Amino acid sequence: MADAERKLTNSATRIDFQTDPSRYRHWKLETDGEVATLVMDVDEKGALFEGYDLKLNSYDLGVDIELADAMERLRFEHPQVRVVLLRSGKARVFCAGANIRMLAGASHAHKVNFCKFTNETRNGIEDASQTSGLKTICVINGTAAGGGYELALAADHIMLVDDGSAAVSLPELPLLAVLPGTGGLTRVTDKRKVRRDHADVFCTTEEGIKGKRAVDWRLVDEVVPNSKLEETIGRRVQEFAARSGRPAGGHGIKLDPLKRVRSDQGAAYSSVSVELVRAERLAVVTLRGPDGPAPQSADRMIEQGAAFWPLRLARELDDAILDIRVNEFDTAAIVFKSSGDPEHVLAYDAFLEANKDHWLVREIRALWKRTLKRIDLTSRSLVALVEPGSCFAGTLAELVLAADRSYMLIGAREGNNARAAAIALAEANFGAYPMSNGLSRLASRFLADPADLAKAEAERGKLLDAEAAERLGLVTFALDDIDWDEVRVFLEERASFSADGLTGLEANLRFGGPETMESKIFARLTAWQNWIFQRPNAVGEEGALRRYGTGQKPKFDTKRV
Amino acid sequence: MADAERKLTNSATRIDFQTDPSRYRHWKLETDGEVATLVMDVDEKGALFEGYDLKLNSYDLGVDIELADAMERLRFEHPQVRVVLLRSGKARVFCAGANIRMLAGASHAHKVNFCKFTNETRNGIEDASQTSGLKTICVINGTAAGGGYELALAADHIMLVDDGSAAVSLPELPLLAVLPGTGGLTRVTDKRKVRRDHADVFCTTEEGIKGKRAVDWRLVDEVVPNSKLEETIGRRVQEFAARSGRPAGGHGIKLDPLKRVRSDQGAAYSSVSVELVRAERLAVVTLRGPDGPAPQSADRMIEQGAAFWPLRLARELDDAILDIRVNEFDTAAIVFKSSGDPEHVLAYDAFLEANKDHWLVREIRALWKRTLKRIDLTSRSLVALVEPGSCFAGTLAELVLAADRSYMLIGAREGNNARAAAIALAEANFGAYPMSNGLSRLASRFLADPADLAKAEAERGKLLDAEAAERLGLVTFALDDIDWDEVRVFLEERASFSADGLTGLEANLRFGGPETMESKIFARLTAWQNWIFQRPNAVGEEGALRRYGTGQKPKFDTKRV
Repeated sequence: MADAERKLTNSATRIDFQTDPSRYRHWKLETDGEVATLVMDVDEKGALFEGYDLKLNSYDLGVDIELADAMERLRFEHPQVRVVLLRSGKARVFCAGANIRMLAGASHAHKVNFCKFTNETRNGIEDASQTSGLKTICVINGTAAGGGYELALAADHIMLVDDGSAAVSLPELPLLAVLPGTGGLTRVTDKRKVRRDHADVFCTTEEGIKGKRAVDWRLVDEVVPNSKLEETIGRRVQEFAARSGRPAGGHGIKLDPLKRVRSDQGAAYSSVSVELVRAERLAVVTLRGPDGPAPQSADRMIEQGAAFWPLRLARELDDAILDIRVNEFDTAAIVFKSSGDPEHVLAYDAFLEANKDHWLVREIRALWKRTLKRIDLTSRSLVALVEPGSCFAGTLAELVLAADRSYMLIGAREGNNARAAAIALAEANFGAYPMSNGLSRLASRFLADPADLAKAEAERGKLLDAEAAERLGLVTFALDDIDWDEVRVFLEERASFSADGLTGLEANLRFGGPETMESKIFARLTAWQNWIFQRPNAVGEEGALRRYGTGQKPKFDTKRV
Repeated sequence: MADAERKLTNSATRIDFQTDPSRYRHWKLETDGEVATLVMDVDEKGALFEGYDLKLNSYDLGVDIELADAMERLRFEHPQVRVVLLRSGKARVFCAGANIRMLAGASHAHKVNFCKFTNETRNGIEDASQTSGLKTICVINGTAAGGGYELALAADHIMLVDDGSAAVSLPELPLLAVLPGTGGLTRVTDKRKVRRDHADVFCTTEEGIKGKRAVDWRLVDEVVPNSKLEETIGRRVQEFAARSGRPAGGHGIKLDPLKRVRSDQGAAYSSVSVELVRAERLAVVTLRGPDGPAPQSADRMIEQGAAFWPLRLARELDDAILDIRVNEFDTAAIVFKSSGDPEHVLAYDAFLEANKDHWLVREIRALWKRTLKRIDLTSRSLVALVEPGSCFAGTLAELVLAADRSYMLIGAREGNNARAAAIALAEANFGAYPMSNGLSRLASRFLADPADLAKAEAERGKLLDAEAAERLGLVTFALDDIDWDEVRVFLEERASFSADGLTGLEANLRFGGPETMESKIFARLTAWQNWIFQRPNAVGEEGALRRYGTGQKPKFDTKRV
C-alpha cells in the first residue's frame, strides 16, 4: 500500500535530526580558507528506511539531514568561508534526486514532510547567501535529475560540464506522474525566470537539456568543457568570494551536541521541554528564559559559544519541532508555554540588537528566523498559553504571534503567587524575523491598519498585562482564572476536527498578504504536489510511482480534473 | 462512491452555460434607474442533478450559471446601473452555501470545476466594481453560511441585519471537514484583512459570528436593525452610486442567444468551431477573424450590438471553453487555431483602442480579459498552432501567449497557396488583458529581461513571420513543413502523461511572478481544497461530507500530514 510505513534501519524508532561531520555517511565537508567543498557521495547502503538502496547519489531524508547540518556548521563554525562548492563524488552523476523506491513505499505523511524539510534546507542555502554572504557554486559533472537539479537551483551559480552527456532535467512528470517537489518549478519560473513555454518543454522532457540550450534557456549559468573545469571553478570562486561580506579571519564557534534526554512522554533539553500528552493529542513545548543577565560583550558571547542562551534555545526548539513533525503524526496541536523573567529576555534581545552587525549575532538571528518559519509551516495547530511566570518577551513573543490562537491569563492564579503574565515587545519583533511572505509577524497580523502596528511599536519594552495585550491585539483572548477552562474546551474541540481540514485552513490563514518565491513554493507548488501525492495516477497500484522500475507501464485515469 | 457521477435532471446530457432572465429559476433581476436588485430565491426543485433538493437558498452549478448570466447582462444590457443590491428572497435566510448533498455525491472532477466556476463568478463581481464601476451591496437578512458568506465577500459592502440571529459563518471545517472553496479564506485574510487569530476563531465556529463582533472583526461592514434597514440601504445605494463612473443614460445592447449548433463531434458557432478529436483526446478550437473592416464609429458598433465581432467571438469562446471544462473531462489538450486576415483583426484592435473609454468597449475588453483568464485556469494542456491562413494578431495573439506551447509553420505548405503564417502584436497585448497575477501575458513571458518586452513592443503592428516570431520569443518553435510532424508526436506524448501531473505542472508554470488575491485564491486556496477533496476525512465513506445529515458522526484519521 502507498500508505504503508517503512521501517527505519537499525531498529531505530525515531528519525533523529542531530548529526555531525564525524558521523556523515553521505557528504564530505572540507574547508580551505574562504572556500568549503561539500561533496555529495551517497552511501548506497546508508538509507534511513529498510527496503531500498541509495543508488546514483539519490537521497532520502537521512541524506538531507546531513546536508542541513553541514550548512549550519558552515555558518557557525566556519565564518571565514565565503564560497561553498557543491560537487558530486561520483563519476558522471551529480545527483539522481529523491530516491524513487523510498517515495513509492513511504506513507503520504512521510512524503509530505520529507519534501517540506528538503525545501527548508534549500531555502536555507539561499538564506545563507542573502543573509550571511555565504555563496554556493554548484558544479554539475553529469546527470542532475529531479531533486538533483533542484538542489543545484538553490545555488547562486550553476556550472554544467559540457561533455555531450551531462544534463539537467526535471523528469518527475513524464517518469513518475508527480511534480518536482522541492521548489523546482517555482525556482525555474521565479528565480531563474525561464520562459514558461521553455519550462514546459524542459519539465516534460525526460532526458533533460544539455549544452548551449541549457544556458540559452537560463537553466544553468554556464557550460564548461572538462579541460577547463577546474580553472573556471577557481575563477568563479574568486568572483563570488569577492561579493561576500563574511568576516575575514572570523573564528567560529563549535556547535556542540544538544543536551537532550528523551522519554516516552517527551524530551528534556537544557532550555526546552516537550511534554507529549498523547491522550489529548497535544505536545506542550515549554521554553525557559535565561538564568541570568546577558553577556557584557560580544567576546563574552563568543566564549559561551553554543551555550549562549539564544543560540542554544533556537537549536533546541528547532530540534523539538522537527521531531514532532515527523515522529508524532498524531499530535493535533503544539501548545507553547514559557517560564522565566521577561526582563531577562528583553536584556538578551537588547544585547542582540546592540550587536546586530556581529557575524555571530547575525547567524543566531537568522537561525531564529528559520526556526520560526519552520513553526509557521508546521501542520499542527499552534497555540500559545501566556500564564503567570511566563516570559514571552521580544524574540519569544514571536511564538505568541506565530500561534493560530493565543490565550492570556488575567491576573494571578488562585493559590499561586507566580507573578501575573506579561508580554513585552522589542525591536526584534518589528523586522528581525520576517515570515516567508516577507513581512514581520506583527505586520502580517495588522495588515488591516498600519496604525495598529504603530501602536504596538509605541509600547516596546513595556511589560503588558493581559488586558493591555488584548487591547493592542497581541493575544486572541484574555481570560481570568474562572474562564480559563475555555482553553481546555478549545483544545478538545480542535483535536476533534479533521486533521486534513485543519492543515489546509491553517496553510491559508497563516499567510495573509503578499506572496514571495519562498511562500509560493510552500503554497502553490507544495499544495499541488500534496494533491498529486494522493492521486491514483501517481500512488495507486497501477500508478507511475509504484510501477517505476518494474518494467510495467503505469495505467492512467485520463480524466482532466 | 464519492466519485460516482450524478445524473443531470430532465435527461440532459451536457451542462449548458447559456441562459437568460426569462429562463431563470433561482434569481430575480430587476432594474430601476441606477439600481438593480438581484434577488436569490432558489427553487428547491430546480437542481442541476438528480438526487438532492436546493433547500435554504443553497446552490449548485445551475444556480451559479444564472448568477453569472445576470452579472453579464447588467454589464452589457444595463450600463446605467451603478449599484447592484444582492438580497435574499427567503425569510431569515440569506444563503446556505453550496448544496452539501450535491457535493457529497459529485465526482471529484465536478466538485473542482464547480468551485472554479463559482470562483470566477465572484471574481467577476469584483471586476465589475473595479473595471466598470458597477458596485455591489450585499444585504444579509439571516443566515449567510459557507458559500453564502463567500458570495457576500465578493460585494463592495456587506450589511448584516442586527436581529439577534442573523449571522455570517464559514462552517465548512467543523461541519464538513473541507475548506470554504470559493475564495472565502483568501478574502477574509487579504480583502477584509481579518486578523489571523480572529479568522481562526471564525472559521472554526460552526454557528458563526453576529452583531457587533462581526463588525469589530471586520467580517461585515455594518449591522443594521431591521427597523432601519430599508432607509440605510437607500443611503448606501446613493453613496456607492456616487462613486461609480458608469455612464448616466447609457443605452445597453441586448445579449442575444449565441448561434450554436452542437454535434457529437463538437460545436459550430458563428466565429468559433470546436472539433472534438476523441481518439486523440484533443479539442481543436478554431477562431475566425472578422469578415470585413471594423465599424466606422462607436455608434455603428452599438448598432451591431451582440453581433459586433469582438463581442460575439469572446462570448462564443467563453462558452466553448466552459463546455469543454465540465463536459469533456477526457480532453487532454485544447489546440487553438485561427483563420482569417490578421490585418482585419488589427483594424478591429485599433478601433477598440481608439474607443477604449467607451463603456461598451470597456465591457468587451473586460469580457476578453475574463475569458482569457478562464483559459489560463483551464486544466487542459493549451497549444497554439500558427499555420498559413491564420490570424493570431492583437487580441487573438493572446491565445498564442496563453498556450503552454506554440508551434508556427515556416513558409507555405506544399500544394497549398494560403499565405504564410504571421503573428502581429498590437497595443492590446501590452496591458489590456492582465493575467490573474496582474501582469500582461507578454510581461509574464519576459520576466527575465524587460528588454525582450521592449523589443516585442517595437514590432507592434508588423506581420511577423515564423522566424521573426521565434526570434522575438513569441512562439516556442518555428518549424518547416517537413518537421511539422513533431506537433503530432508532441500531442500524442502529451496525452500519454498523467492527467493530474499535468494539471499541477501547468498550474505552476503558467503563473510565474507576483501573486495577487485572485491568483492566491486559485493557487494556495484551491490547491489545498483539491487536496482535501481527495482525503478520506472529507470524502471517504466515514468522512464528514458523506456523513453530513445522516445522524452518524464522521470518523477521522487523526494523522496530521
